[in-house]
Amino acid sequence: MKIKDIGGEFALIRRIKNKNKIFSKDVAVGIGDDAAVLKYDKNSYMLFTTDMLVENDHFSLKYSSPEQIGMKAIEQNASDIAAMGGLPKYAVVSLALPSDIDAEFVDGLYNGINKKAREYKINIVGGNITHSREIVVNVAMLGFAGKKSLVLRSGAKIGDLIFCSGDVGASTAGLELLRQGKSGKSIKRHLEPRCRLDLAGKLAKIGINSMIDVSDGVASEVKHICDESKAGAVIYADRLPISKNTVNDSKKIKKNPIDLALYGGEDFELVFTANKKKLKQLKKYDVKAIGEVVDKKYGIKLVRNGKKSGIESGFDHFRRIRV
Amino acid sequence: MKIKDIGGEFALIRRIKNKNKIFSKDVAVGIGDDAAVLKYDKNSYMLFTTDMLVENDHFSLKYSSPEQIGMKAIEQNASDIAAMGGLPKYAVVSLALPSDIDAEFVDGLYNGINKKAREYKINIVGGNITHSREIVVNVAMLGFAGKKSLVLRSGAKIGDLIFCSGDVGASTAGLELLRQGKSGKSIKRHLEPRCRLDLAGKLAKIGINSMIDVSDGVASEVKHICDESKAGAVIYADRLPISKNTVNDSKKIKKNPIDLALYGGEDFELVFTANKKKLKQLKKYDVKAIGEVVDKKYGIKLVRNGKKSGIESGFDHFRRIRV
Repeated sequence: MKIKDIGGEFALIRRIKNKNKIFSKDVAVGIGDDAAVLKYDKNSYMLFTTDMLVENDHFSLKYSSPEQIGMKAIEQNASDIAAMGGLPKYAVVSLALPSDIDAEFVDGLYNGINKKAREYKINIVGGNITHSREIVVNVAMLGFAGKKSLVLRSGAKIGDLIFCSGDVGASTAGLELLRQGKSGKSIKRHLEPRCRLDLAGKLAKIGINSMIDVSDGVASEVKHICDESKAGAVIYADRLPISKNTVNDSKKIKKNPIDLALYGGEDFELVFTANKKKLKQLKKYDVKAIGEVVDKKYGIKLVRNGKKSGIESGFDHFRRIRV
Repeated sequence: MKIKDIGGEFALIRRIKNKNKIFSKDVAVGIGDDAAVLKYDKNSYMLFTTDMLVENDHFSLKYSSPEQIGMKAIEQNASDIAAMGGLPKYAVVSLALPSDIDAEFVDGLYNGINKKAREYKINIVGGNITHSREIVVNVAMLGFAGKKSLVLRSGAKIGDLIFCSGDVGASTAGLELLRQGKSGKSIKRHLEPRCRLDLAGKLAKIGINSMIDVSDGVASEVKHICDESKAGAVIYADRLPISKNTVNDSKKIKKNPIDLALYGGEDFELVFTANKKKLKQLKKYDVKAIGEVVDKKYGIKLVRNGKKSGIESGFDHFRRIRV
């Protein structure tokens, strides 16, 4: 049976999770959040995550410089650590490279990795190199979160407001511009995405209830929070934070910017939920309320142009068009 | 410039290592050993490693079952932890899969991963799945070693004996049998290699000076120990532990078993050095003295058929013939 027939990537992950066995009581959270949560010491948890970039799927050498690929590999993993309320500290890098690749490619890739490692003070402590037809860059990252700062996907409460940081849809708009050979400001958002390590820790301190990073589109992220929190949600499409640049660029590529925000990916912004009482404190930051957590029995609904409908599932790597 | 022109995989790793910056004093050992060594608590270090299996490079679906691929992915990483004198505890798994792959492949792969996780009590705490043309399985693993048990590549002392555990050359003999469509007992050694977690901890307790696992052939492993320890070595080819099965199978494939032991890979045995005084204690175990550590000025020499020569560099993924 094909993976699409069992329901795609997310169904596959559920299948893997159902067979998973944990042997140690030191695992606070295993498969199913942005990073695993491991007991560390009296005051902090250790966070463990991994993410892979594959040529022609996550990047194309037609569009990205080697440096940009290296930067993205670190941002993508750091974003998972940020979404838990943590700070990254260590990483290891696995490369698979075609045998005829230039050494300069690897130099550029590592320039990007090292640039981001410097910015976030991440220690690159190991890795390995092997051979493949297409370039593969895998990063595994360790981070730490104070016990009071840890935020899970599973903590959303009925009545919480759902927030989104920054603006979303830009990365997918940029990718689509590249594919169509057009120019626009969103392109840089696709090639050089930035995670929200600058913001996540501040949100965690305020005391939010759940959080996830936007790697697969807002719809998908809200669904993950609802699944893990056993809750439902209402998202208001007209509340989604979409920049003027993204709106302009979406006209060029003939896409609805709301679709890009809901079903695009790789914005690496934060979706989180918090009690309504936190609204005033949260207003100081670059975040916007986009919906509300409701009882599970109501499912996940999208209000768009005054009409309420069920939400499509988000971005799925097995449905992705290769660049 | 191509990677082979700068000196291959190991030269590339040196190039990466030279640009590497460490920001934390908690990194005891970074790039350049089987695993990174990170400060953990008063009595123990944390070990962090990663390794990747790529279809048609490390395995072929013609030869390996999905379960065997999963098993090998865990063994390969556990072997790195073993070679440091540690025990594995946590792992995350990244998969890249062709979009038309059967869900049953993933079930089988995870059966293999879970089988080994159970055997070694490793908690599989996360991962991710994405899309690629060829199957890629990346594992990142965390382990722990008591401060007294930690063994590095860099600890070899002039006058140390060089030892090798178990027997070597079998995995490459098995791969070659498969390629040539022949049968033999070495095939299982290639498809289902086992790391030496059963032995490494005991060796570490005895007080050995340096250790590495045999992933790239004995010659290459001795070279790594010498490079990191700033030493030279003499290896006696006739002392290499090679099983009768490997000798038999090497006749079928028309290879010299000593070449398989020296320049083959993926045996996941241990090469280590220890003071001569430890010989008696070490004799209780499944290990054999194969040479001696000498001053760096003598280089690394191989004594074979009474003749002394320089040693070829070991296995290099950029010289590997794709299966």
